[in-house]
Amino acid sequence: MQNLGLSKLKMERGALYETIVTTVNEDGSGNAAPIGVLCRNEKEITLYLYEGTHTLNNILREGKFAVNILDDPCIFALSTFTDLKLNYFKKYKGYVVLKDADAFFTNVVYKTRKINKKDSLGKSTLYLVNAKVKEIIMKNCIKPLNRATYAIIESLIYSSRFKIADKKTRERYIERIKEMKKLVKKVGTKKDKEVMKYIMQQVTRF
Amino acid sequence: MQNLGLSKLKMERGALYETIVTTVNEDGSGNAAPIGVLCRNEKEITLYLYEGTHTLNNILREGKFAVNILDDPCIFALSTFTDLKLNYFKKYKGYVVLKDADAFFTNVVYKTRKINKKDSLGKSTLYLVNAKVKEIIMKNCIKPLNRATYAIIESLIYSSRFKIADKKTRERYIERIKEMKKLVKKVGTKKDKEVMKYIMQQVTRF
Repeated sequence: MQNLGLSKLKMERGALYETIVTTVNEDGSGNAAPIGVLCRNEKEITLYLYEGTHTLNNILREGKFAVNILDDPCIFALSTFTDLKLNYFKKYKGYVVLKDADAFFTNVVYKTRKINKKDSLGKSTLYLVNAKVKEIIMKNCIKPLNRATYAIIESLIYSSRFKIADKKTRERYIERIKEMKKLVKKVGTKKDKEVMKYIMQQVTRF
Repeated sequence: MQNLGLSKLKMERGALYETIVTTVNEDGSGNAAPIGVLCRNEKEITLYLYEGTHTLNNILREGKFAVNILDDPCIFALSTFTDLKLNYFKKYKGYVVLKDADAFFTNVVYKTRKINKKDSLGKSTLYLVNAKVKEIIMKNCIKPLNRATYAIIESLIYSSRFKIADKKTRERYIERIKEMKKLVKKVGTKKDKEVMKYIMQQVTRF
């Protein structure tokens, strides 16, 4: 068993982490976007990218990208709404990465697949991008952001208010906890899913 | 300026962190409960505790408690619904702490104040417990859990779906983002609040 991969970054198989993906634009400059990264195993990841985005176009053209691990909410917000300025990036062996990342890893695409998705927001075209991890660089020690941790904390906060809540409020809390369970199913680790199941058992006893 | 206190644990003034507070029961055994800890400055914290809880009773009697920093969702869940078993605790200089904490700090109470709170759940009696940090022990490096980080990530995820959402869905997203803003106002750092303000500006432009 090879264990020198993504577990170094505390990324677990099957969980989805909130990261910033950086790619090289056609003019050689850097592009950054907040993207969920699914950890498939120690050395492989999958991205789900919407058609028409800079990130997807750059990845399809270059066949490579970097994943940056950080938890600075400011950089997540700026890269959601704007193009990050030049001084946020640095070059690294043919990749661009974020200067302020706590860790990053470079990736080489080995398979892409176009899929049509239909959900509450309507139809959209997505690309599944499968990639192999090439090199991992850690600067500071950090845990990559996973929404499941938060979903569990929120569920526990609702649970702890159960005793003092009236029937209507409890029903609202149960609804929220169910939403959180769905989220954990999508992004959490195996352990997170077990914890969420335990929470549901506890709150439905009331 | 004294900077050898809570900033070592990446705790910032004015922000509220999700921790496990451990106290000594009357029989000398350990008690653990998930509690939000407000960082007041490098060496002082405040807890808000409901009347009638073991944690409050122990703190009022002993005048001391420990704050454990960890992000294991399992321990948060177990300590919400049950009494943690003996083997989760260890003794430390007259305190009890969690064996598996990534860091912990011991505290001495210097002021308590009883307040009456009225919110959507009805009336309740709370105790404000002000304490001075005595000693900080770090084992692993970790960032203490702060719900604001995740509230910002959730808001950004809603924001990124704005372009493809219909009017009704957008309104629902705005409502959720407003809830997240309220949460960040309550638990976030100064920077988190600025980021949330920026997000609100961006989404209300649509």
